[in-house]
Amino acid sequence: MHNERIARAALSRLMEPQDVAGLALVHVAGAEDALRIATGQVSYGPGLEQDITGLLADHSSVNSWAGLGAALKRWAPRIPDLAPERDLATMHRLGGRVLVPTDGLWPRQLDDLGLHQPICLWWRGLELELPPAARAVALVGSRDSTSYGASVTGDLAYSLAQRGFTVVSGGAYGIDAHAHRAALAGGSGAMPTIAVMAGGVDRFYPSGNEDLLRAVANQGAVLAEVPPGSAPTRYRFLQRNRLIAALASVTVVVEARWRSGALNTAHHAETLGRAVGAVPGSVHSANSAGCHRLLRDGGAVCVTDAGEIAELASPCGQSLADEKSGRPADHDGLTLEDLILLDALPLRSASSVEKLCTVAGLGADSVRAGLGRLALLGLAASEKGGWKRTRQST
Amino acid sequence: MHNERIARAALSRLMEPQDVAGLALVHVAGAEDALRIATGQVSYGPGLEQDITGLLADHSSVNSWAGLGAALKRWAPRIPDLAPERDLATMHRLGGRVLVPTDGLWPRQLDDLGLHQPICLWWRGLELELPPAARAVALVGSRDSTSYGASVTGDLAYSLAQRGFTVVSGGAYGIDAHAHRAALAGGSGAMPTIAVMAGGVDRFYPSGNEDLLRAVANQGAVLAEVPPGSAPTRYRFLQRNRLIAALASVTVVVEARWRSGALNTAHHAETLGRAVGAVPGSVHSANSAGCHRLLRDGGAVCVTDAGEIAELASPCGQSLADEKSGRPADHDGLTLEDLILLDALPLRSASSVEKLCTVAGLGADSVRAGLGRLALLGLAASEKGGWKRTRQST
Repeated sequence: MHNERIARAALSRLMEPQDVAGLALVHVAGAEDALRIATGQVSYGPGLEQDITGLLADHSSVNSWAGLGAALKRWAPRIPDLAPERDLATMHRLGGRVLVPTDGLWPRQLDDLGLHQPICLWWRGLELELPPAARAVALVGSRDSTSYGASVTGDLAYSLAQRGFTVVSGGAYGIDAHAHRAALAGGSGAMPTIAVMAGGVDRFYPSGNEDLLRAVANQGAVLAEVPPGSAPTRYRFLQRNRLIAALASVTVVVEARWRSGALNTAHHAETLGRAVGAVPGSVHSANSAGCHRLLRDGGAVCVTDAGEIAELASPCGQSLADEKSGRPADHDGLTLEDLILLDALPLRSASSVEKLCTVAGLGADSVRAGLGRLALLGLAASEKGGWKRTRQST
Repeated sequence: MHNERIARAALSRLMEPQDVAGLALVHVAGAEDALRIATGQVSYGPGLEQDITGLLADHSSVNSWAGLGAALKRWAPRIPDLAPERDLATMHRLGGRVLVPTDGLWPRQLDDLGLHQPICLWWRGLELELPPAARAVALVGSRDSTSYGASVTGDLAYSLAQRGFTVVSGGAYGIDAHAHRAALAGGSGAMPTIAVMAGGVDRFYPSGNEDLLRAVANQGAVLAEVPPGSAPTRYRFLQRNRLIAALASVTVVVEARWRSGALNTAHHAETLGRAVGAVPGSVHSANSAGCHRLLRDGGAVCVTDAGEIAELASPCGQSLADEKSGRPADHDGLTLEDLILLDALPLRSASSVEKLCTVAGLGADSVRAGLGRLALLGLAASEKGGWKRTRQST
């Protein structure tokens, strides 16, 4: 029995993430025929190969395409391992499922990946729609986070979850774990956080985050494009990052070294036309060097609180940033002449208009008019025929 | 006796900094006639007023122009105080002088201020040319600096001075003082630091910085556009900031609150087309909020060390930033297939080519070719007919 869901489940085991030949084959032939061709059950004609070449040329991916024959050789060693029904049963036992693009629960923002959309998503968690990109924020960063990174991540994730955003991260130690944990604590919406894994979702990896990831699955979702039992290899980590970037409208790097996987996620976000934020930190902290690099290269926006991140996420550009005006100074909005005059006014004993003219370098008419304006603002007061500043103006 | 120098010395007492009517009068009539007109010694015809109006219209400053009559009224109260010869004698006694634009020592980068160039500079310090803008960096920031701000300012100023840059600042407490002090310590060039004051240079203000400013005058220069005896009013602080920005090719804000005079200096620099740098810091520090604001508004470049500042200052764009590549990872530059293969290689016991095909999801030819490439790079080694990773590749 072959149907779309089972075919995609099988294909995701046959092919590594972002196997462009495989993705193109699925695109051209459909998942069920793609599986039959990939497993050698049916042969293919020259037309199919031409269609794939044309598709890959359109996507400038033709360079990594060595023909369907080479791809079949690559897939052949894994054919004996295919057991999609067993994989689906495993997921069912774990309370999970596999999603395919035709499902109502499929996150539509993944369409932006085009040909690089995953073949399917292995999903443990609530049977609920993911929020649209505009309501999801990715918080990513180093595994070896500092106490600064932990505290900032906690503040941001908690506050974003409180505002109803879903916090997307990678389930790793460090920044990822702080992001998931604080989002769970702050969560007010339906799905406060989701974890996108590089390996299979049948086990919660790394083991030190097992309890946390179980909680994420209970209140949100833990998902991956690779089937149960897949090891989280370096290659899969790099591909996984594109899913984190695609699920959210903003990717914020909280802490990252000069070289860091989090920067890879940021670059995926940039490529997709998504916003990238970077949290500044001490110039002495190696764990902020990657963030500063992103700021310096001009691709990232400096973000310091959840309001600024919400502003980046908002598609209509409405201002959600916290008002941070500080106390306006009394002399704001004064004309230059009045500012000069205010500076010239003594604090203790009052000064005559003539004296003020000399000190301020202004004519008597200007001084008199200016004193009137300053008095109206409560900044100047007359006393015994002279003028002085009020306490308010200091 | 009226000559250019004495006339400008007198005019700088008669007029506040940036008195556009006065600056235009000097521009149109020359300094000596401008002084005669401003003090009522000679009268003027309607042609002069028209010329000034035209000049100010060209500079879009015509709005602040109420006619020469109003300006004369403004200047009149200070006429009795004029004693330029006494002021020059004061400067001479202090080992100083007054510079005018025709002097060889006049800093040519002030030309960029156009009409807003100061009338003269009151100067205490070495009788040496200031460096051109490309060799001068302004370091500015809050008076109430944190230990972080102090330490970063010290590192930057010391290192910039060691590279032969002149550090320009405002002589105030906090960031300014740390900048001057570290530049003096690191100074290798002729003039490691200069202080631009808002009040007269006859006294070193604030008094707590007296020893420091004396040292700046001994090894560099302390200067102001206002004459001896002038109080450092708020208005003069704001105008002074344009001189700091104009003297340097880069203005770096090390620490500043959300509202801070240092941001005013940064805006002057931007208006002049000079580069602006901002040092990132903790999002929890109110003293970095102004820097983050500059980064967020997009006007400032994120700078974390002296090399990055030197790069901004360099007019030819040559890269002076410190190499910060970090240790390149062994897997950098591998093709995706080889990276997948490297991930699939076991660390301990060797694996057969057939096994590697299954784990990596690659054909046998690709695996064999990839193993050859990885072996050449020292990342894979064969052992008893199988293959494993080398220690180097982990």
